[in-house]
Amino acid sequence: MKYCSDCGAKLVEQIPANDDRLRYVCPQCEIIHYQNPKVVVGCLPVAGDKVLLCRRAIAPRMGYWTIPAGFMENGETMLAGALRETREEAAAEVCDEVLYRLFDIPHINQVYVFYRANLNGGFGIGPESLESALFSEADIPWSELAFPIVTDVLTEFFADRKTGEYPVRVSTPSPLWAKHVGWEPDTDKTL
Amino acid sequence: MKYCSDCGAKLVEQIPANDDRLRYVCPQCEIIHYQNPKVVVGCLPVAGDKVLLCRRAIAPRMGYWTIPAGFMENGETMLAGALRETREEAAAEVCDEVLYRLFDIPHINQVYVFYRANLNGGFGIGPESLESALFSEADIPWSELAFPIVTDVLTEFFADRKTGEYPVRVSTPSPLWAKHVGWEPDTDKTL
Repeated sequence: MKYCSDCGAKLVEQIPANDDRLRYVCPQCEIIHYQNPKVVVGCLPVAGDKVLLCRRAIAPRMGYWTIPAGFMENGETMLAGALRETREEAAAEVCDEVLYRLFDIPHINQVYVFYRANLNGGFGIGPESLESALFSEADIPWSELAFPIVTDVLTEFFADRKTGEYPVRVSTPSPLWAKHVGWEPDTDKTL
Repeated sequence: MKYCSDCGAKLVEQIPANDDRLRYVCPQCEIIHYQNPKVVVGCLPVAGDKVLLCRRAIAPRMGYWTIPAGFMENGETMLAGALRETREEAAAEVCDEVLYRLFDIPHINQVYVFYRANLNGGFGIGPESLESALFSEADIPWSELAFPIVTDVLTEFFADRKTGEYPVRVSTPSPLWAKHVGWEPDTDKTL
């Protein structure tokens, strides 16, 4: 961030009055340009004992499997965003949506919010996916999952299924995924 | 948003390739400047049968009572942000934090995330508060609450206390608050 998006003047970095951290401030119109985390919303579509995953057609982690998810847009609810992403990435409609899992990923300034839902009819392949498919627990391609949060959600989901209890959890991603895919911390900021 | 924050060029509004909505795009460096919802994080500090509220010293809703909360910052988790806001607004430390309540407020592009926690020692008055105080259910100043989400969280909390179950809920704010404070929809965008 170098220029004021309101007036075009060159920004300066300073700690504003009554604040305690550096912000981008416009010396001309005095606007403070705050930078805040973004919300990624998604859905775990369930069909019987299977879940619907998509294989990514785009970077990062092209070719790896993920849960339909993407950046929440202005003007929508978290659920509306999760349903939109499920349509866009898996051409799927779902029903019976329930809040299921939140993640903090502070080093990339993101919050993830996932719903569980039942697949309602067919599914297909959106423009950001190479393929979509239903997987039972035994068939999950654990070493080909795109992100640690996907490993966590799927691990927890199949464990929760056995108990019939689906508590809403919040945490940073677990190191489980790194073990599955041989990921090296600090070399990939695009979790 | 009028100028590119990266190069200072005048932005244009257009629908980028593979997109379906208008974005601010820089014709010079081709960056797409996405605008996304912000996350507000907060905490409901509990002490015995009472909860800690703060009376706002700043707009909007100056002089009205609220739960310690504020914008989540880059580089922090939701809980870290909630604890920071609790320190800043109520000079309070808490413990035993549990995720409790999420709200969508799509017309102002905000998501709220509240934790429940136990007050851990004393409390005070931060620079954005006029006073802080503990309230039992019978003493809650229902007609002087700052925002509908505060009415909702407190209503649900005192009901949940009776059952001992605190499910994690997500919704848009209920119209309860409007009834308490005589709020007119569409005249106040700063919920």
